[in-house]
Amino acid sequence: MANAPRSTAPAPGAAPSVALVGAGPGDPGLLTLKAHALLATADVVIHDRLVGAGVLALARTGAVRIEVGKLPGGPSWRQADINALIVAHALSGARVVRLKSGDPGVFGRLDEEMDALDAAAIAFEIVPGVTAAAAAAASIKVSLTRRGRNKALRILTGQDVDGFAEHDWRGLAAPDAVAALYMGLKAARFVQGRLMLHGADPATPVTAVENASRADEKVVGARLDRLPEALAVAGVRGPAILFIGLRPRGALAALDDAAPSTLSLALASGSWA
Amino acid sequence: MANAPRSTAPAPGAAPSVALVGAGPGDPGLLTLKAHALLATADVVIHDRLVGAGVLALARTGAVRIEVGKLPGGPSWRQADINALIVAHALSGARVVRLKSGDPGVFGRLDEEMDALDAAAIAFEIVPGVTAAAAAAASIKVSLTRRGRNKALRILTGQDVDGFAEHDWRGLAAPDAVAALYMGLKAARFVQGRLMLHGADPATPVTAVENASRADEKVVGARLDRLPEALAVAGVRGPAILFIGLRPRGALAALDDAAPSTLSLALASGSWA
Repeated sequence: MANAPRSTAPAPGAAPSVALVGAGPGDPGLLTLKAHALLATADVVIHDRLVGAGVLALARTGAVRIEVGKLPGGPSWRQADINALIVAHALSGARVVRLKSGDPGVFGRLDEEMDALDAAAIAFEIVPGVTAAAAAAASIKVSLTRRGRNKALRILTGQDVDGFAEHDWRGLAAPDAVAALYMGLKAARFVQGRLMLHGADPATPVTAVENASRADEKVVGARLDRLPEALAVAGVRGPAILFIGLRPRGALAALDDAAPSTLSLALASGSWA
Repeated sequence: MANAPRSTAPAPGAAPSVALVGAGPGDPGLLTLKAHALLATADVVIHDRLVGAGVLALARTGAVRIEVGKLPGGPSWRQADINALIVAHALSGARVVRLKSGDPGVFGRLDEEMDALDAAAIAFEIVPGVTAAAAAAASIKVSLTRRGRNKALRILTGQDVDGFAEHDWRGLAAPDAVAALYMGLKAARFVQGRLMLHGADPATPVTAVENASRADEKVVGARLDRLPEALAVAGVRGPAILFIGLRPRGALAALDDAAPSTLSLALASGSWA
């Protein structure tokens, strides 16, 4: 196993414990006070690739930082190795913070790590975080639920163990359905096809928020029937949230502030009435 | 209008602006760094009833705190009056923080306030927060989504403008459906009836988390067919999240830590296999 425990000072006699912590969507200001305090006293921070430099800078100066992310096309960590790494550091007596992008309970592979900690009889706590959809909605100034519009929100993944994830497409194609699709960029054409096959209005608004809350955040709006093209022209590469059934507040006005390519695209596609 | 602007020192020449801020689920440690910073410099904090004393204590000492919550059976604020109050304070030059429980975009009546601010040409920003479902899931140590179990999560309200909210009951009754029901306590019997009418397994696990993340948090588990009785016996009065399709990690083990009434109830109802 790479990155075996280094000489972090074990707390003598302290029972090993681990904090599984949500890092929020990227903006360090969206870290919780509790996550901040844990980072500031951590010996070892084991973090996903998506956790940004601004958040990691808040960790204790002497803390060992280990990235266990999966680089597209590059080397990547197997979940079993991540589990073993967390356990090994905890057993060494280190104060371990396992830092996960967003909220650890939303598409965070949390269960595998909890199982490994239980198997090793290591106590752990979970610190929830701001999930990407909440930050993306705040950026485009819409609420995720709204009286008279939608009294339910679906949080979905575009990717499954077997590839593109299947969902309740009929329900999602309904006029009042609102969903936040995580890891949906590669699945955009698949999702578009499934929704339209099940009767979704081709003019259903879809809004992509790339790098929500970060300095390089980008917002792209499109009609459902032009979604893959809009994402391609705007150069959205992710990570991104795709909102099905939501458009930015003020629509065109909001897009005036966006990158020119995004704006011109939105105008060209005639998305925003 | 009650609580008209007091003598908060207006910033001379500064354009009025308002921050619509998520206060998180209750634990002050789950406030974001950004929310904390805004509270620490606020002139006026206009907050819901559910925002706890621990969070409010983080506001600037001299800040005016105004509660605009709705007390069951007591005096309550109309949304239009809340909107007018926010606008009036902002126009007076005060740094206004509108503090909403959880994430402002999830059942937060955010749109009405944004509309009022736009109508008054007052700039605003939205600061997302940790929503109650994320905190409740962290407390019972389950993830809201899980590979091989559920690749979608529904966030629903139990209450609608017209009373109990109708939802896609057939989809929610499916064996792998997972939902977080907000404001669902009064609707518990209604939800139970709708789900069972649509074929839900009577043994579907339902977990209520009352006052998630707070010192008085309570967890109650029940089978769907015994849900209203379990909530009544345990004395759950809310605010609570009802998880449909989720049980606490370790089930009985987790409930050993709960209040005796909760534990005995769970044992008596034979909820946890």
